[in-house]
Amino acid sequence: MDRRDFGTLLAGAIGAAAFSPFPFRPLAAQDAPLGVDGPRLRRRLDEITRFGSTGDGGIDRPAYGDADIAAREYVRTVMREAGLEPSVDAAGNILGRRPGAESGLPPLMAGSHIDSVPNGGRFDGPLGVLAAVEAAQRLREAGVETRHPLEIVVFSNEEDGKVGSRALAGEVTAEELDRTTNSGYTIREGLERIGGDPERVTEIGRSRGDVAAFLELHPEQGAILVGDDLDIGVVQGIVGIKRWQVTITGEANHAGTTPMDQRSDALVAAARFVDTVHRRARSMEGRQVATVGRISAHPGAANVIPGRVEHTLEIRDLEMAKIDRVYDLLRKEASRIAAETGTEFEFSHYYTTHSAPTDPRLRDIVEEAARSRDLSTLRMPSGAGHDAQSIAQFAPVGMVFVPSVGGISHSPDEFTRPEDVVNGAEVVLGALRAADGRDWSAA
Amino acid sequence: MDRRDFGTLLAGAIGAAAFSPFPFRPLAAQDAPLGVDGPRLRRRLDEITRFGSTGDGGIDRPAYGDADIAAREYVRTVMREAGLEPSVDAAGNILGRRPGAESGLPPLMAGSHIDSVPNGGRFDGPLGVLAAVEAAQRLREAGVETRHPLEIVVFSNEEDGKVGSRALAGEVTAEELDRTTNSGYTIREGLERIGGDPERVTEIGRSRGDVAAFLELHPEQGAILVGDDLDIGVVQGIVGIKRWQVTITGEANHAGTTPMDQRSDALVAAARFVDTVHRRARSMEGRQVATVGRISAHPGAANVIPGRVEHTLEIRDLEMAKIDRVYDLLRKEASRIAAETGTEFEFSHYYTTHSAPTDPRLRDIVEEAARSRDLSTLRMPSGAGHDAQSIAQFAPVGMVFVPSVGGISHSPDEFTRPEDVVNGAEVVLGALRAADGRDWSAA
Repeated sequence: MDRRDFGTLLAGAIGAAAFSPFPFRPLAAQDAPLGVDGPRLRRRLDEITRFGSTGDGGIDRPAYGDADIAAREYVRTVMREAGLEPSVDAAGNILGRRPGAESGLPPLMAGSHIDSVPNGGRFDGPLGVLAAVEAAQRLREAGVETRHPLEIVVFSNEEDGKVGSRALAGEVTAEELDRTTNSGYTIREGLERIGGDPERVTEIGRSRGDVAAFLELHPEQGAILVGDDLDIGVVQGIVGIKRWQVTITGEANHAGTTPMDQRSDALVAAARFVDTVHRRARSMEGRQVATVGRISAHPGAANVIPGRVEHTLEIRDLEMAKIDRVYDLLRKEASRIAAETGTEFEFSHYYTTHSAPTDPRLRDIVEEAARSRDLSTLRMPSGAGHDAQSIAQFAPVGMVFVPSVGGISHSPDEFTRPEDVVNGAEVVLGALRAADGRDWSAA
Repeated sequence: MDRRDFGTLLAGAIGAAAFSPFPFRPLAAQDAPLGVDGPRLRRRLDEITRFGSTGDGGIDRPAYGDADIAAREYVRTVMREAGLEPSVDAAGNILGRRPGAESGLPPLMAGSHIDSVPNGGRFDGPLGVLAAVEAAQRLREAGVETRHPLEIVVFSNEEDGKVGSRALAGEVTAEELDRTTNSGYTIREGLERIGGDPERVTEIGRSRGDVAAFLELHPEQGAILVGDDLDIGVVQGIVGIKRWQVTITGEANHAGTTPMDQRSDALVAAARFVDTVHRRARSMEGRQVATVGRISAHPGAANVIPGRVEHTLEIRDLEMAKIDRVYDLLRKEASRIAAETGTEFEFSHYYTTHSAPTDPRLRDIVEEAARSRDLSTLRMPSGAGHDAQSIAQFAPVGMVFVPSVGGISHSPDEFTRPEDVVNGAEVVLGALRAADGRDWSAA
């Protein structure tokens, strides 16, 4: 136990309890509100930017690179300051453990990642890790002994394949180990660099019941909260994704000699479809999104009517069945447009990610933790993928969003306001305490 | 005079006159209808397919290549059979001349080209050349002496830059001589290969008055005539062209985390514009065409909302002012769409070809030549470029279209029916005779 931390404690009864030589002794009022040490958390969020700073507020810290390795060492130090005992598993995940009071209970897990996309932002990942460490540290400082063990986690390589969290879900395969990642290292080389074990990474999958519950705090990566001036997003789940390659066939023809009413212009058909995708996805009930992100027209000359267009179609929703309903509707629209324009549409499905709903009990717990701190909340899907998505394969998960200014993500301009950093960490702390009081034995 | 040709003559008075030892002696009834030798013309159209045949009905005869050189030699032989004296100018144009009765009159010119696009069709070019040769041959065989000299022309390299006809218009520049063409040869090398003179090609521009009138027969390259079951297109002119690069700027964003109503999707804006371009060009009075042929979305990933789209915009019409009116209208539509979608449109003009109206007198002459043979006609623009466009810079031009099955062009499937071949040649013959009776002195 590092006594230097005590200097940052809040005054009063909680502080006094933390000075006890028996730090894990339960408080008389264990459910009394407990605050995080905001300045300490913000300082640590500043300190970790040293590793891979781009100098303009951004972070270039791809997994397995030198900056990632240095930042991992920093987090291990911070974990020790928080009274957590860090270890590294075969997937390179850092697991900072603190025992629980009741023997035989599986751990409550909380955390996120610290690697970044190339030229990414400061809060995406580290916020969730350092807030979870802060929550654990406050519990210890407050002398709160939890029933469940705590396992504060840094998942390895989230941004380029969720390798650490997927390994815990038993989803990492031997085949992918030789894939080169953003750092330039293969996953195999990377695991060796960070203290993992590529030979055993496929064997560490956990089973239902191995983790009581998991909590992840993350900046929103969209502008819903910030747009509505809300404090906390109670994540309903991570959306599923389906993608199709759409091929539209018309008739290539001379752009000068073919009158407007004799054309089968594949790009005009595509244009009507792209517009319809947007209008339909926007006007339907719900939070589904549909996007056409890539398009090409062939032969692709200014003076030739396009005879063929290829474009992507992506639909996301919390419910896979809703994705299919949107798709069915768009197929009908495509048939109508094909008839109007004398073209043919062909849809080729090439990608699916299944949605990962959060646990309804954890949604309530997160919401209540926010409300008890007078924070406004919104139940919302996560449109982006997160480590929580992997953990949801074998454990109840909850996710907490805080507003990200302008909804900016994966950019040096990503920014989470100091008050939102503290709000998010307090909700994690409150939710962990509430979760600790519940029975998470697999039904 | 090659007496073998006489075996193909029609019987009767015309044939008898042609046997005269004074072949250019005027007929008593010089304006009596004179028919072409259809079988001979069709045979020659067959024979010229030998040079560069692709084996599937198509022609691969880029200018300056070996097939082009062999086909040029074939045409010179045919010209001599028709009593024309071929020469080659500095631009590699083959000019087959026959003197006229009145000294000092400039020539009546007729012809087209014989080079093809890679993997092109059989009739595009050779039809105009061999029909003009046939017309001259019939005049000779019928003993018709024209007032004007006749100049039957094979323009060099039409398909890759209209080099021959543009040289006559004084438009070829020294700078373009080193451009590599479809044959793999530069224009300079190509001119040397076909007997031209690259050092003098920029000096052979003709002036107003140097050519009395020019006629070109060509397959339509569109499906207007064939669609309405018409025999002859009386070309009102070759359309002008303007092209723009359109850049639409929105906001690139995460396709999962950005709700539909918070997007500035540049591709949705582009889609609305492409659809509007088509609908507007189609619904306006007139024969204008507008086309978007090339498009790209950036960054161009299935999971990123496009922040920028670039596409071409091409507008063609017989009147340059009409092109500008269509453009102005589309700019207004773009402003409306920009406001709707939260995007910006930028138009960058990069290409203009001025329209080349045909001479009103030659339109009447062509129309009358068709009607006197009970052929149905339609006045129509040429949406494609032709050598006549260059010649229009310094002389009155007329153009005759015959139907092309399915409107197919620049393809091995291009086909002009035998009866349309003959109809077109008869109209050229009739129009040449009528034009010969007119005064073409520059006003």
